[in-house]
Amino acid sequence: MRRGILFILSSPSGAGKSTLARRLMAWDKNISFSISATTRSPRVGELNGREYFFHSKVKFEEMISKGEMLEHASVFGNLYGSPREPVDIAINEGKDVIFDIDWQGGQQLRNSGLSEDAVSIFILPPSISELENRLKNRGKDSETVIESRMKKSLDEISHWAEYDYCLVNDDIDNTEKKLQYIIEAERLKRSRSPFLIDLVRKLGREFEQEI
Amino acid sequence: MRRGILFILSSPSGAGKSTLARRLMAWDKNISFSISATTRSPRVGELNGREYFFHSKVKFEEMISKGEMLEHASVFGNLYGSPREPVDIAINEGKDVIFDIDWQGGQQLRNSGLSEDAVSIFILPPSISELENRLKNRGKDSETVIESRMKKSLDEISHWAEYDYCLVNDDIDNTEKKLQYIIEAERLKRSRSPFLIDLVRKLGREFEQEI
Repeated sequence: MRRGILFILSSPSGAGKSTLARRLMAWDKNISFSISATTRSPRVGELNGREYFFHSKVKFEEMISKGEMLEHASVFGNLYGSPREPVDIAINEGKDVIFDIDWQGGQQLRNSGLSEDAVSIFILPPSISELENRLKNRGKDSETVIESRMKKSLDEISHWAEYDYCLVNDDIDNTEKKLQYIIEAERLKRSRSPFLIDLVRKLGREFEQEI
Repeated sequence: MRRGILFILSSPSGAGKSTLARRLMAWDKNISFSISATTRSPRVGELNGREYFFHSKVKFEEMISKGEMLEHASVFGNLYGSPREPVDIAINEGKDVIFDIDWQGGQQLRNSGLSEDAVSIFILPPSISELENRLKNRGKDSETVIESRMKKSLDEISHWAEYDYCLVNDDIDNTEKKLQYIIEAERLKRSRSPFLIDLVRKLGREFEQEI
């Protein structure tokens, strides 16, 4: 059986990344989502273990020191991170995992000893005004938060060239299709198909029986 | 505009490679086929410039010495090779090119200075008996030729692990689809999308106008 692949999905917020991640999981049940841990307070409607694992700062820092976080970062004063255990379980069962993390998280993940298993994809917005509109239309955040998110977005975009793939999300259906192509193709990489050695050996034996 | 990609398609003969190459060209007009040059005599129905470029041995060796062949090999006493000029023209026009060549050709092509542009795919047959049946059913070759082709096949298969992707052709429609995924995904690689730098610069300017 092949190992699962870690798909790192990064983009400025508002570029459609969360919608795309949700769609990919609906498309293929073999894909799961790496639920982040955070020290920020739950918003209305958010459930522990569904949107995030909500941890105290003490607990979060203990997990970091024990190496139980694949990556972590401080964003707007709160800690965010990807717990290692569920990811290890998933990839050993041949399940692919999507990470909705920023460029810093992506760099740390690639340096966490799982770089061979990771494929990174950056989603670019077609324009800045569209990005701003989407953030405003979510209606979740105050003007000040939107402004700081926009500044973070520009920083995020400046790291696009560190990714394996780069897509412009000018049409969500089209972008979903492109992500599906990438996932299907990455699964076909020879380096991810060590099990084919068995077929090749079988072909060799069959050939000897023929002659 | 992006540069075209060179897709190296290798497999033992009878594994369905030629059918797949034909289907891919019908699927996407942006994909062309690298027509090989050869010193062997045309078979009935073969046209110069369609199946092969038929050259004399003198002319062929002159092209090799002038560096006009991306790769070449001697197979069953005849020379075969991929002329460089049509490939250079195609990739500079952003057109992808499929190469139906063996592992030796694949290695030479990767060493010809075009390795960044090349993606290699190996097609495995599901069984040796199927391979033999397909060769016999073509009805093109004598028993002796089929036998030597089968021996060459085993040699070819032993190089599967040098390829970027590896597919088992147990269903031609399914295999065609997989090849389409690979082609679509390779086109989305960030390293093949240098033109996105223009979009990123535009986003930066838009951001400065917003604040």
